[in-house]
Amino acid sequence: MFYHIKELQYQAKPSKPDPVFARQLQEVLGGQYGEISVMMQYLMQGMNTRCEDKYRDLLFDTGTEEMAHVEMLATMIARLLDDAPFEDQKNAYETDPALNAILGGTNPQHGIVAGLGAMAADAAGYPWNAKYIISSGNLLADFRANLNAESQGRLQVTRLYGMTDDPGVRDMLSFLIARDTMHQNQWVAAIKELEEREGDIVVPTTFPRSLEKNEVAYTLFNFSRGDASSKGRWAHGPSMDGRGQFNYVAEPEPFGPAPKLKPAPFLYHDTMPPKSMM
Amino acid sequence: MFYHIKELQYQAKPSKPDPVFARQLQEVLGGQYGEISVMMQYLMQGMNTRCEDKYRDLLFDTGTEEMAHVEMLATMIARLLDDAPFEDQKNAYETDPALNAILGGTNPQHGIVAGLGAMAADAAGYPWNAKYIISSGNLLADFRANLNAESQGRLQVTRLYGMTDDPGVRDMLSFLIARDTMHQNQWVAAIKELEEREGDIVVPTTFPRSLEKNEVAYTLFNFSRGDASSKGRWAHGPSMDGRGQFNYVAEPEPFGPAPKLKPAPFLYHDTMPPKSMM
Amino acid sequence: MFYHIKELQYQAKPSKPDPVFARQLQEVLGGQYGEISVMMQYLMQGMNTRCEDKYRDLLFDTGTEEMAHVEMLATMIARLLDDAPFEDQKNAYETDPALNAILGGTNPQHGIVAGLGAMAADAAGYPWNAKYIISSGNLLADFRANLNAESQGRLQVTRLYGMTDDPGVRDMLSFLIARDTMHQNQWVAAIKELEEREGDIVVPTTFPRSLEKNEVAYTLFNFSRGDASSKGRWAHGPSMDGRGQFNYVAEPEPFGPAPKLKPAPFLYHDTMPPKSMM
Amino acid sequence: MFYHIKELQYQAKPSKPDPVFARQLQEVLGGQYGEISVMMQYLMQGMNTRCEDKYRDLLFDTGTEEMAHVEMLATMIARLLDDAPFEDQKNAYETDPALNAILGGTNPQHGIVAGLGAMAADAAGYPWNAKYIISSGNLLADFRANLNAESQGRLQVTRLYGMTDDPGVRDMLSFLIARDTMHQNQWVAAIKELEEREGDIVVPTTFPRSLEKNEVAYTLFNFSRGDASSKGRWAHGPSMDGRGQFNYVAEPEPFGPAPKLKPAPFLYHDTMPPKSMM
Amino acid sequence: MFYHIKELQYQAKPSKPDPVFARQLQEVLGGQYGEISVMMQYLMQGMNTRCEDKYRDLLFDTGTEEMAHVEMLATMIARLLDDAPFEDQKNAYETDPALNAILGGTNPQHGIVAGLGAMAADAAGYPWNAKYIISSGNLLADFRANLNAESQGRLQVTRLYGMTDDPGVRDMLSFLIARDTMHQNQWVAAIKELEEREGDIVVPTTFPRSLEKNEVAYTLFNFSRGDASSKGRWAHGPSMDGRGQFNYVAEPEPFGPAPKLKPAPFLYHDTMPPKSMM
Amino acid sequence: MFYHIKELQYQAKPSKPDPVFARQLQEVLGGQYGEISVMMQYLMQGMNTRCEDKYRDLLFDTGTEEMAHVEMLATMIARLLDDAPFEDQKNAYETDPALNAILGGTNPQHGIVAGLGAMAADAAGYPWNAKYIISSGNLLADFRANLNAESQGRLQVTRLYGMTDDPGVRDMLSFLIARDTMHQNQWVAAIKELEEREGDIVVPTTFPRSLEKNEVAYTLFNFSRGDASSKGRWAHGPSMDGRGQFNYVAEPEPFGPAPKLKPAPFLYHDTMPPKSMM
Repeated sequence: MFYHIKELQYQAKPSKPDPVFARQLQEVLGGQYGEISVMMQYLMQGMNTRCEDKYRDLLFDTGTEEMAHVEMLATMIARLLDDAPFEDQKNAYETDPALNAILGGTNPQHGIVAGLGAMAADAAGYPWNAKYIISSGNLLADFRANLNAESQGRLQVTRLYGMTDDPGVRDMLSFLIARDTMHQNQWVAAIKELEEREGDIVVPTTFPRSLEKNEVAYTLFNFSRGDASSKGRWAHGPSMDGRGQFNYVAEPEPFGPAPKLKPAPFLYHDTMPPKSMM
Repeated sequence: MFYHIKELQYQAKPSKPDPVFARQLQEVLGGQYGEISVMMQYLMQGMNTRCEDKYRDLLFDTGTEEMAHVEMLATMIARLLDDAPFEDQKNAYETDPALNAILGGTNPQHGIVAGLGAMAADAAGYPWNAKYIISSGNLLADFRANLNAESQGRLQVTRLYGMTDDPGVRDMLSFLIARDTMHQNQWVAAIKELEEREGDIVVPTTFPRSLEKNEVAYTLFNFSRGDASSKGRWAHGPSMDGRGQFNYVAEPEPFGPAPKLKPAPFLYHDTMPPKSMM
Repeated sequence: MFYHIKELQYQAKPSKPDPVFARQLQEVLGGQYGEISVMMQYLMQGMNTRCEDKYRDLLFDTGTEEMAHVEMLATMIARLLDDAPFEDQKNAYETDPALNAILGGTNPQHGIVAGLGAMAADAAGYPWNAKYIISSGNLLADFRANLNAESQGRLQVTRLYGMTDDPGVRDMLSFLIARDTMHQNQWVAAIKELEEREGDIVVPTTFPRSLEKNEVAYTLFNFSRGDASSKGRWAHGPSMDGRGQFNYVAEPEPFGPAPKLKPAPFLYHDTMPPKSMM
Repeated sequence: MFYHIKELQYQAKPSKPDPVFARQLQEVLGGQYGEISVMMQYLMQGMNTRCEDKYRDLLFDTGTEEMAHVEMLATMIARLLDDAPFEDQKNAYETDPALNAILGGTNPQHGIVAGLGAMAADAAGYPWNAKYIISSGNLLADFRANLNAESQGRLQVTRLYGMTDDPGVRDMLSFLIARDTMHQNQWVAAIKELEEREGDIVVPTTFPRSLEKNEVAYTLFNFSRGDASSKGRWAHGPSMDGRGQFNYVAEPEPFGPAPKLKPAPFLYHDTMPPKSMM
Repeated sequence: MFYHIKELQYQAKPSKPDPVFARQLQEVLGGQYGEISVMMQYLMQGMNTRCEDKYRDLLFDTGTEEMAHVEMLATMIARLLDDAPFEDQKNAYETDPALNAILGGTNPQHGIVAGLGAMAADAAGYPWNAKYIISSGNLLADFRANLNAESQGRLQVTRLYGMTDDPGVRDMLSFLIARDTMHQNQWVAAIKELEEREGDIVVPTTFPRSLEKNEVAYTLFNFSRGDASSKGRWAHGPSMDGRGQFNYVAEPEPFGPAPKLKPAPFLYHDTMPPKSMM
Repeated sequence: MFYHIKELQYQAKPSKPDPVFARQLQEVLGGQYGEISVMMQYLMQGMNTRCEDKYRDLLFDTGTEEMAHVEMLATMIARLLDDAPFEDQKNAYETDPALNAILGGTNPQHGIVAGLGAMAADAAGYPWNAKYIISSGNLLADFRANLNAESQGRLQVTRLYGMTDDPGVRDMLSFLIARDTMHQNQWVAAIKELEEREGDIVVPTTFPRSLEKNEVAYTLFNFSRGDASSKGRWAHGPSMDGRGQFNYVAEPEPFGPAPKLKPAPFLYHDTMPPKSMM
């Protein structure tokens, strides 16, 4: 169960409105790696986990914090939209070049649909959807998803930091960037803990290794002409899981034959090969 | 530029048709973490990278191999659909319980739309879309996305391995599982190499740490009542990036005030507060 | 900012697992009118409103409660999936008709993707997306959206109530149904309050009536042959907003001419009419 | 069965082309609450209703009219795109600021994909999809969906009215606004009629009230700190359905325990708690 | 402008309910190549065409007829859902194998969401969306899209014909199949007429041939090892447009160099190559 | 199985960066009829075909070539994004009108998400999805889909050719346009070959003509008032398949009765007609 308090986790006040940046900032609210994604991903993982409380609690702690970040970003976007000049664009075309850029760079849905409010969408106006998230039941896999999300997320926020010079916006972004620093550190710590506990780094660690084709489990196949990739750590030396030796195959050959499919039954009206070839 | 040869990287032949499993197997062909996802993700990253050849080559090697996996899975699915009994279901209702389960568990689009062929969709019939992938230009971030994809992918394939007892299917899956073992190892190696080269683990490593709010960069806020999460490595000791100390705040307080938004201009016909409150 | 406590708002425990019902119950978690929709809709409206605290607070109260409903449903679905028989289906085909129905009626992604956890998706496996929600800045419009959502939502939950006889599931559903009763009542009350305050029922109430084509503002045009619709309240008597008289036009005629579009510039390579017709 | 006549229900002729406004106008053609939505929603409800002819006829009357609105908007958009300057943008960058705003504010797909025609998409280029509509079989629920759609729709059209000063465009919009006035009135009338006939306002009215948890059916839980929401009509006095008394709970407590999920079977390779904790 | 009459273009009455087939039949109502697709495609093309009346009229004739097909299919689906046994499934598991198949093969949303009505979705429950259609302004291109749609559509309907033995359903399908026969014939005729009028078969016919790289305009590159494709008409002889000679290149070589991208500016925090390599 | 070489099929180098055109060019990379669509469509058709090698090989030849086109376009887009001015927009508003147009016309996700790389999305930022493609098992149907795709594709590329004057971009586009010329020719040839082999032009050719309602198989119904469409080849003379005579019905009448649906069972809580009417 959840409670809300009216105060924001951190202030969300721009120095002045900027509807172009409002549109851009939508990316980290409702985009593929925005705050709605991490909020929903952590909460779903927390609700679904069949594991012990330590991890469940961590997921709820972090997911609940991300809700506060959603709130901060939505507030910031609404304020960046204050006084957005959607209404008088026609006259402005000829007289105000600065206004032109604003009109061109905004998402008109901020006016038409949302009445100067934030939307659960990204910088191109594409709505958030639940295929952005994963809750697999395997925490080592999911913590890697979380580390990935925090890495892409922090990257995007730092890019946005460089695309504005508004001190109020930058102040809030510097808070979010720091929290992403913590969250990357935290998932790295949790991943390391789980890898040690499970004694392997290959997810899932519980599938018997004897059931996979071991002869290709540590091979880099060179499917792209040129051998630049053979220079990396991944092509020689012991494998990272300590169970094999990386090796490099310069000219990979197929293991299987060319496939030939059976004709379909008549019902499907598929094209049939000529009788002579069947 | 690409070339195709007719032979499969590995054989893709079930011992007998099984249209129910054909539907399930679609998940790792056209699902969120299926082979189309990794193929498209690695190729896009390879095409977009502005970095040196070693990484570009590795991305193309692996992306090109994933295309061969797409081909193997599509071939396997088509064969699992051989002799699918879509056509005579009506009579079967009463007489053949085994057939009932088959009918219920199949995706009828395999018959109606695809004529007993594979689709670029998942086990629920949802089509593949490009929001499953990321190519950010930052390779440390993207390699984490890749490690995540291979972790979720191998997890799903091992689950499917447990959901069939067909020796032919299991044979092919054991090949794919081994390749995912390699790919997890490979991305771990590449991640480690980049972390060392860049001297940090927090993506992006190039954003000046002085610009983030350092006082919250290593704090676990306890937003979920109960202190189970304080027991983890992430709540105490040096941070994983070696630049701070984890700390735990049991009762987090807001840093910001409650927000109050300005009324919108008349154009938007938003609900206005009573005059007395403006 | 938000806090979470570990206890559920109401218990979520089925009497026994039922993976078929787990799939069906997904509709009211992650479907068009599921709990994620109302949670996100109320919170976004609350964050965006530029109106007085009374409404903002109501939106946060209710949105925060819906998060607790998301949690209850996710928990219930995970428990309904306990012991789901995905793994041994092959042998079951011939011997266990009850199992057949279970296999046919489940969503295999519950096993393959979510590891027996809930998903942010509906009963057909379609992921939740943000186009399910609206936050327009006009509260009278949005409260009607909310009343609609609670009406469709309660309807779906009562249907699900009739599709199970599990006492534990029904117990939880009876709680959700009661809360939807409250929420319908609450939005009706809020709608009535706003209609009275604004002195009109036509959204937006602030657009000058003199600017619309008043001569067609209260007319029912009979575009579907037969006059059954002329028997309703909407075809005669004073209009509901008290500003006009409903009237019925049995044989509507067009007010405008047939359109004729200009040819496109050459650049677009559109098909051009023959020169003689231009 | 349907017939088409060439004339438009109302004229659709701008005073001059305006490709920026063409993009914005797409919102009420192919957006969440555009004319395609109401056309499809009313027609599907009409086709599906198992109720008497009066309502079926009303739905077809209105749905068929909305098709005429789709036609008017598509015609208007095509004309707004006449002479759109996609072709010579490069030279214009430096010399024509007014053109700059036009280029920035247009959707290039109007040129590349549609050859200066309308698209079934919204102002951000997002395609119309059928999750925008509902046809539930319960007319009271669906008429509320219709009232909501007409409220959001009229709101958006009035906003667009304020975003242009083209007399031809405004003339057509004033027709659409008036029709939305009628449609809001009409659904209010139909809702009232059904509420009276069914003797309740809580959808569905047929679910036995004795089966819901009556003790929470009229309670406002204060999940958001602060008591502003207690000041509303929804927190005290008789409920709107006349069957209970609203009441306000200032400090809501959970009714349920903290959930604890069972470990998953081995097949799923979920993370398991340490043996000591199982 | 449109009118509706109550009668169906053709009767839509199954001999008995069949909710499994109801789900399958959704494919040709709301799927990629269902009746909603052709209705919307033809109407949008008709509204957008800047060409002469002959084609505009043909598009409206056919688009308006497709609306009648939508109506027939929706009616048929609702009737196939009559008496669907969603409500008592639990007891049925053990006792009624025929019922099992029904339960497994249905879409539960037909009950939960649509109350036994049709949905604007396909056989997997995926909603119709406007990316299924095209209206490009070039009629030769669009008529090819139409011929494709009628080809895929008729193929799917004939498959469904083979998947049922209900005489009432087959009767209606045989009507739809015949109409698709007409529509394929009609678009072939219209395509031929336009090709002759424009004097070319390569869309768009108006792009100056001198501006394309003529040396590769009639070449089949053998990118897939093996020369089976060289046996076709497309590899030798005069090209179909009569302007060139097909030729076959057995071992295609790249015309371009390997690409090397410039490093990105610092703002983007992309991974940079080591200084020594820049 | 596939191999990659580093060289591009054709050079992809603009004369100078142009981030506005980069956004527009996305349409033919990741749009409905972009190169990803044809690549995936041909490869899926090739993998699924149960027909003889000649066609399978042709599909793989062409699909594999389209991958090279994806690579060329992604490379071109990345180079057009070099030096994109996302970072300093704020100051530019007032001083640089040319920059204004650039800012307004770009997709900010090229900076925020992709770090100046190409995306698998279209010109509006909408992600590629697999509903753009079809692989039906019937090659005559699918080759028509392919001809349609190449027609729409070439049309879009020629429009883009007219929207830029960069010699480097035009050089690459002229290569792609020529390849589309070949591909249109090739599919026309393959269609003709299959039509002759199967002895009919109506897909599927194998459905017995005696089972369709022959009396409506060659009729143009005039559902749109006015007889312009009766002037076309499609309304008189022998049908294109040589099996009937086109005919024109000026005033089509319904063949079926008005539908009346049965009330739904109580479970669904659908609105019921008054008892007197049931």
